[in-house]
Amino acid sequence: MTGLARFSLNQQTVRQWSLPELAAGCAAEGVRHVGLWRGPVQEYGAAAAGRLVRQHGLTVSSLCRGGFLTAADPPARAAALADNRAAVEEAAEVGAAVLVLVVGGLPPGPGRLVDARERVAEALGVLAPYAAGHGVRLAIEALHPMYASDRSVVSTLRQALDLAERFPADRVGVVVDSYHLWWDDTVAGQLARAGKGGRIAALQLADWVTPLPEGALLGRGQLGDGCIDLRWFFEQAGAAGYRGPVEAEIFSTRLWSRDGAEVLAETLERYRRYVMPLPQVVADPEIVQGVTER
Amino acid sequence: MTGLARFSLNQQTVRQWSLPELAAGCAAEGVRHVGLWRGPVQEYGAAAAGRLVRQHGLTVSSLCRGGFLTAADPPARAAALADNRAAVEEAAEVGAAVLVLVVGGLPPGPGRLVDARERVAEALGVLAPYAAGHGVRLAIEALHPMYASDRSVVSTLRQALDLAERFPADRVGVVVDSYHLWWDDTVAGQLARAGKGGRIAALQLADWVTPLPEGALLGRGQLGDGCIDLRWFFEQAGAAGYRGPVEAEIFSTRLWSRDGAEVLAETLERYRRYVMPLPQVVADPEIVQGVTER
Repeated sequence: MTGLARFSLNQQTVRQWSLPELAAGCAAEGVRHVGLWRGPVQEYGAAAAGRLVRQHGLTVSSLCRGGFLTAADPPARAAALADNRAAVEEAAEVGAAVLVLVVGGLPPGPGRLVDARERVAEALGVLAPYAAGHGVRLAIEALHPMYASDRSVVSTLRQALDLAERFPADRVGVVVDSYHLWWDDTVAGQLARAGKGGRIAALQLADWVTPLPEGALLGRGQLGDGCIDLRWFFEQAGAAGYRGPVEAEIFSTRLWSRDGAEVLAETLERYRRYVMPLPQVVADPEIVQGVTER
Repeated sequence: MTGLARFSLNQQTVRQWSLPELAAGCAAEGVRHVGLWRGPVQEYGAAAAGRLVRQHGLTVSSLCRGGFLTAADPPARAAALADNRAAVEEAAEVGAAVLVLVVGGLPPGPGRLVDARERVAEALGVLAPYAAGHGVRLAIEALHPMYASDRSVVSTLRQALDLAERFPADRVGVVVDSYHLWWDDTVAGQLARAGKGGRIAALQLADWVTPLPEGALLGRGQLGDGCIDLRWFFEQAGAAGYRGPVEAEIFSTRLWSRDGAEVLAETLERYRRYVMPLPQVVADPEIVQGVTER
């Protein structure tokens, strides 16, 4: 296994690339996994996109994203469920084993986070069996608390696990994303809990840099540019039993303005430097003993 | 006690006002407390600022802010301690019983949040007795996790209490700020913990609105404009035993571009509508009985 065997390039890191460019670019660098997004997949055709990446020796580590399941009024809920069923079908067609769910923010009007999370749980009760029927595992992604109002009422790994654990582990897991979770001092314990339950369905990495841009969405940092201990996430997920792909998912207008191949090469270099295990220094017992005795 | 007896206007809500304008503007509206900031207080002179607000019948609910105590290298630490001693002296001079501390973010270079929090604790060990000697209580403010790298390695009320509880309650308390804490589903329990320990030193309110502006700092929402249940914070703090001032602290370029008096009037109207207790419906026992029997 080369060092890159687990690396996955999430499509949003090189949004400037078309799907064929992504597939060819990844193959050229020996990348084996990609994370895809519904928009470009729909445009290309999900089945065709699946064939394209397979032809380039790539597996699809995840499809982003379903979710937005917090609406209270019946027509909006029905529309959200229909859209998520379509997302499940697209995941199956493109060959993604995991469909990432961003659960949605607070709907307009008075409402409480806890109620919105309950509506997500209800929706998962409908969607999880549907996804299982398509061979697709749902994965709840906790988003940074700065998105709690407009994108995700699930802000911590604990909340994501509280939701996921209402369902069988092979049907509903969680996404572990360094960008969303790095600040939380309970995350080590929750990673262990996730591992014990076999709930880690995906691992995504981006670094945290400031200042945040307007909207707080497209200012993620290239691996190593920020303050997150990315190797810690890699190792903790490993210690918890996760052996799957490791996606670099970096929404960044700065990266998008550059040449895609250059961005991928840089991302791989950063992955080797900041994520992959450090070389083990194998101690020679005699030398160690000699040092000790001196 | 009028409904406004506990309302406090934090100076940053009407940054367009000078200190004399603030004092006169608050007095004109019957406001009894103000939260002040070190910059304008230093410019005016702390003792003079204290006299000015007292002449207008105002007390100073808090002085913002000391802190930024996470640096690791000795010269930076010494400078931070000196600056915080000055902040304590200014708080005493201006007549503020509480000095708000924003503890600081991650210093440059590799480092862990937990280590940075330990350095804050060490600094508090020096500053808390100094502040007590000046009749000033330190109050640790948990800032929203989106500020964890550059402003505050204390992101939750639990972390703030973990730090504060290493010191006597009359020396180190916590600030409860709706803007920073609203997303956290453990906050009710932590508010109760804070109340039980007599740790709530200040209550600040702002609403959460999106999109966040660049830098994520100056886009707080006027009370009632966002998604936070502000009355819940008021009531929970009350249930936990807090009876002190309630500061409206709204950093917002939108508010700053308007007339200060208009902003204060609007803030008071919003405070009455979204924060103050709803009128108690006092049931007439006979009528209630009648209804029950019917």
